Amino acid sequence: MRALVYHGPGHKSWEEVPDPVIQDATDVIVGVDTTTICGTDLHILKGDVPAVQDGRILGHEAVGTVEAVGDAVTTLQPGDRVLASCISACGRCRYCRDGRYGQCLGGGGWILGHLIDGTQAEYVRIPFADTSTYKLPSSVSDEQAVMLADILPTSYEVGVLNGAVRPADVVAIVGAGPIGLAATLTARLYSPKHIVVIDTADSRLELAKQFGADEVMNPVHHDVEARVRAISDGLGADVAIEAVGVPETFELCTRLIRPCGRVANIGVHGKPATLALDKLWAADVTITTGLVDTYSTPTLLQMVASGQLSASAFATHHFDLADIEAAYATFADAATTHALKVVLSN
Amino acid sequence: MRALVYHGPGHKSWEEVPDPVIQDATDVIVGVDTTTICGTDLHILKGDVPAVQDGRILGHEAVGTVEAVGDAVTTLQPGDRVLASCISACGRCRYCRDGRYGQCLGGGGWILGHLIDGTQAEYVRIPFADTSTYKLPSSVSDEQAVMLADILPTSYEVGVLNGAVRPADVVAIVGAGPIGLAATLTARLYSPKHIVVIDTADSRLELAKQFGADEVMNPVHHDVEARVRAISDGLGADVAIEAVGVPETFELCTRLIRPCGRVANIGVHGKPATLALDKLWAADVTITTGLVDTYSTPTLLQMVASGQLSASAFATHHFDLADIEAAYATFADAATTHALKVVLSN
Amino acid sequence: MRALVYHGPGHKSWEEVPDPVIQDATDVIVGVDTTTICGTDLHILKGDVPAVQDGRILGHEAVGTVEAVGDAVTTLQPGDRVLASCISACGRCRYCRDGRYGQCLGGGGWILGHLIDGTQAEYVRIPFADTSTYKLPSSVSDEQAVMLADILPTSYEVGVLNGAVRPADVVAIVGAGPIGLAATLTARLYSPKHIVVIDTADSRLELAKQFGADEVMNPVHHDVEARVRAISDGLGADVAIEAVGVPETFELCTRLIRPCGRVANIGVHGKPATLALDKLWAADVTITTGLVDTYSTPTLLQMVASGQLSASAFATHHFDLADIEAAYATFADAATTHALKVVLSN
Amino acid sequence: MRALVYHGPGHKSWEEVPDPVIQDATDVIVGVDTTTICGTDLHILKGDVPAVQDGRILGHEAVGTVEAVGDAVTTLQPGDRVLASCISACGRCRYCRDGRYGQCLGGGGWILGHLIDGTQAEYVRIPFADTSTYKLPSSVSDEQAVMLADILPTSYEVGVLNGAVRPADVVAIVGAGPIGLAATLTARLYSPKHIVVIDTADSRLELAKQFGADEVMNPVHHDVEARVRAISDGLGADVAIEAVGVPETFELCTRLIRPCGRVANIGVHGKPATLALDKLWAADVTITTGLVDTYSTPTLLQMVASGQLSASAFATHHFDLADIEAAYATFADAATTHALKVVLSN
Repeated sequence: MRALVYHGPGHKSWEEVPDPVIQDATDVIVGVDTTTICGTDLHILKGDVPAVQDGRILGHEAVGTVEAVGDAVTTLQPGDRVLASCISACGRCRYCRDGRYGQCLGGGGWILGHLIDGTQAEYVRIPFADTSTYKLPSSVSDEQAVMLADILPTSYEVGVLNGAVRPADVVAIVGAGPIGLAATLTARLYSPKHIVVIDTADSRLELAKQFGADEVMNPVHHDVEARVRAISDGLGADVAIEAVGVPETFELCTRLIRPCGRVANIGVHGKPATLALDKLWAADVTITTGLVDTYSTPTLLQMVASGQLSASAFATHHFDLADIEAAYATFADAATTHALKVVLSN
Repeated sequence: MRALVYHGPGHKSWEEVPDPVIQDATDVIVGVDTTTICGTDLHILKGDVPAVQDGRILGHEAVGTVEAVGDAVTTLQPGDRVLASCISACGRCRYCRDGRYGQCLGGGGWILGHLIDGTQAEYVRIPFADTSTYKLPSSVSDEQAVMLADILPTSYEVGVLNGAVRPADVVAIVGAGPIGLAATLTARLYSPKHIVVIDTADSRLELAKQFGADEVMNPVHHDVEARVRAISDGLGADVAIEAVGVPETFELCTRLIRPCGRVANIGVHGKPATLALDKLWAADVTITTGLVDTYSTPTLLQMVASGQLSASAFATHHFDLADIEAAYATFADAATTHALKVVLSN
Repeated sequence: MRALVYHGPGHKSWEEVPDPVIQDATDVIVGVDTTTICGTDLHILKGDVPAVQDGRILGHEAVGTVEAVGDAVTTLQPGDRVLASCISACGRCRYCRDGRYGQCLGGGGWILGHLIDGTQAEYVRIPFADTSTYKLPSSVSDEQAVMLADILPTSYEVGVLNGAVRPADVVAIVGAGPIGLAATLTARLYSPKHIVVIDTADSRLELAKQFGADEVMNPVHHDVEARVRAISDGLGADVAIEAVGVPETFELCTRLIRPCGRVANIGVHGKPATLALDKLWAADVTITTGLVDTYSTPTLLQMVASGQLSASAFATHHFDLADIEAAYATFADAATTHALKVVLSN
Repeated sequence: MRALVYHGPGHKSWEEVPDPVIQDATDVIVGVDTTTICGTDLHILKGDVPAVQDGRILGHEAVGTVEAVGDAVTTLQPGDRVLASCISACGRCRYCRDGRYGQCLGGGGWILGHLIDGTQAEYVRIPFADTSTYKLPSSVSDEQAVMLADILPTSYEVGVLNGAVRPADVVAIVGAGPIGLAATLTARLYSPKHIVVIDTADSRLELAKQFGADEVMNPVHHDVEARVRAISDGLGADVAIEAVGVPETFELCTRLIRPCGRVANIGVHGKPATLALDKLWAADVTITTGLVDTYSTPTLLQMVASGQLSASAFATHHFDLADIEAAYATFADAATTHALKVVLSN
């Protein structure tokens, strides 16, 4: 088959590789119908994720068709159309039993396109298939479903649920990239009073309005802290969601919230941040971090199927799978192309 | 009357001052029977709390007898024996309606010995008396009750409840001063499997054992992180409670917890700390800060009365109220005197 | 002044009575601008609430203007426009400190138009005014605000929040009277997937669609249990909300929910019901009852002000306050008049 | 092998049957070292559980040694010493993913000794072995471990956790059989102020004191409701746990709790009860039912291992497995023998 193979920092190629085969009784082989590219894939290509080795097939998001099933797989059979999630779950360890699949101790967690071969290929082996895939109803399109592989559960679990957004809340979302926009969309499920999205790119702020922001702000032009206090009786936001991954945006979040407020970090950070405990020790704040667990995937899938969540809105560009290198170029140059998610079809 | 008056950094005196009088209809005047000294009082004397001005009577913990009541006070009358809490609560604002009295917007919060005259005096005016005092049963002694003014609710709410200690947990408590010891005592209420107390003073570690620690560690002599992992299946503590207030101890707490663990900060910090988001972003951690709200005071009072909590154990030294300057000397030199709480009786 | 006075079962009259006066320092006198009639008022008139005595002024919902304030009132002054809530809260007792104002032990709870004179009058005395009234922004009309006195917080707290409605849930609401319709409206705040409203009156079912029901069912014509299972993978509803108050509808709710589901009873019951423990003991169900506490009133008020909740939709009929006897006739004959809430303006 | 086989109501025999074999890749075969008898087994023998058919091997609690493992089993190997839980979990269905194993939709739930052959035998086949067994540390004896198969998680999850027992609570436990005593023992983990155990058998009430009851009451001799109110400021218990399974005891529980209290039903009921909604509709009560899920088994196992829970205390009688018919006679005549749990060793 053909697959996108990583060859060290800065190098990747769409090349011929051996087809994957069943290795464990809990595996399935999925024929990839649709996949996409994640910001994390770009980090890998920069060399930021040293666990990814030369020769690894990239990608951790896919919609496809089951081709073969291991002996221990009980809920899937060849021909089933499934979502392959970014998180694999052994279903047996302490963390999996608690629904915290992202922290799986039994060989799962984020492994696809990281520790084992991934989804940017014609076929992919999915371990622990019974607990790592989701059967798709025909009412959900591939393009919608692939947004459930990572972006929607990540923003919802790590941003909205960890942040405990509630009706009538003031919510500040820092970062209007795909994750920040998905947090905007899914925060709406809890009927906040006012969502403010903050970013330095005006084109993304325009998008944020379409995804449900009540107000957008560019900190280059506005005093964000003063404005958030002004719309919250002088107190600060109930919830701040960090969706960038640099110290400055995290630190901004800790300044934006009111006493008893919550900061939910989604961003992938490469450096430590400063925590102003001298100001925060008495402020009753809660700060959370998290890797997605995908426990919410069945719930989100129902809401995409029922039309409550508009998953398609993230799909800005479409490519044939064989043109994946062009797709990477488009996705990596989002400032110019305004790409959110590129959809690759086989 | 006589009271301990602050006269700028380094200066205090036990001197004659006017008796307090009812100023608002919700006030009571309490004759102080028993008071104590808090670590925060020492911070004030160092000049670390600039809001405290020359002439202020210090102290925010007392047990006493109601002498006079304002017209709007409905639940108290002269002669009632009450606990005066470190937190005053207007009972009417958004935060008070939510039980978050420490963040009171209506004139309460931590005001005694801070923004208004305090309890280290023969008499004290207590605002919002109906919602800021607690009537005491005769079965609870003054010495027990005064520990409910600050140290027990602070350690319980900000440490144990924010940390969400649960049965069978491994709990690491960093700091074995009065607050850390009170956290040790109250964490026991949730039946953790193993409480590890960490401090650099061996004498305090000995005390920690008496207060319920299963194990104590001096980081000068032990690899604390390795040991905590060893007793937690290699994962880390379920909960780490910070009870010191310097960056190093907070940062240690963030290294001691397991994925999905919780850090509950109680310490009063004067400087920012470093938050290793590069390591923590994917670890599903929760970090909380907090000023005590005293919503747990009625619960703790019941447990002191029933003998479930041994409040007296904190009372290491006793003085007449008039000898308060000697009491400060003893309390400030805890390294030598091994003082935890000094009890001042009028 | 003139007021609607109860004179025993079946008897009421709009008559001249003495003006109310400040009795306690925490009282205010409110000039009633707008009031309404509750189903409970009809129960009182039937003699179902024996605590209501001859001579009592009826009514527990009002919007008005503060005319006089007691000495201990700190947050209100004459001229303030306020909502007078159906629940008064002393703000000092164990239950009030816990936000459970409906169970107030200090003289509050449901007292207006029940144990003390009520709001269907030109003036009303409101005890514990600081904690029993809510200042109104000018953006909220009287007609909107009066729906916050009882119907909206009752349906939201006792139905939606006790039922713990979550995104993607299937919610069954039994009863399409004003409370059931308000539960339909406020359940939407949590983005359920499907709300089914069940009633035997087809005209009310039509209304339910306007208030947000995805589907309506008349049990006379449909097999409700079979249909609810059909839309919930054969399992049953996640949440069932009882909004009628007779044994049959409660018992239906317990049959409609799935294992691990919740039944939230709002209905006012005059008789015991049968609880099929032989079927339910192993089904992991949760059943809740409740009197409104009004802790959600500030939240709901914000959502009415921001346009998130359409409170006006309940106001089907309008009368001058002096025509209150005609208003009762219209409200009592809802089957003919299709009245939901009648708005009485002074 | 030999096993205890059910032959219709009133009939059972210890007889020769074929050895169990691996049927599915997720099965293991366990050699039974220790088993016990549950009250439910007596119900089956009375014919109360028609799903149990002639020829079924009884029993759903065991400690044993893995003899053979299916191809898909990844966490167990022959020779492992394991606890076989009363609940089997497919680990893949909606309920299992949520930790609600008792409601498993994938073929698990309570199946052992019910829908498939059980543990009162020399060998037993355990389906879904990776998610239905627990490896035992050597520090936990067979006798301790077998109490974790049903009685301890049932009383803890369905009684103590559903009842949400908290520090300083007043807890009423109705029924002092094995489940009620286990609820008494495990409720202690949350440091209630006062546990009252109620039963009509004085010998069991004596036992309840040994298991941690602060007070015991025989309703034949005492006015239980008056006494519970007397020890709870006139309000009622915070939590009432039903551990009998007849309408009268459930109804008593609903009368014992305070406004905002909780009734946690553990009892297995054969008849409906009466729910006094005319009294309870405004009382803010929560009533829960439940089949054990065993999500707490790892936690309880840790506490047995650490000595926090005294599991052995339930083991009143010991038999060889081959003498199981004598053991049933002893267990069934508990009124005379004072048996709590009989331990059967192979």
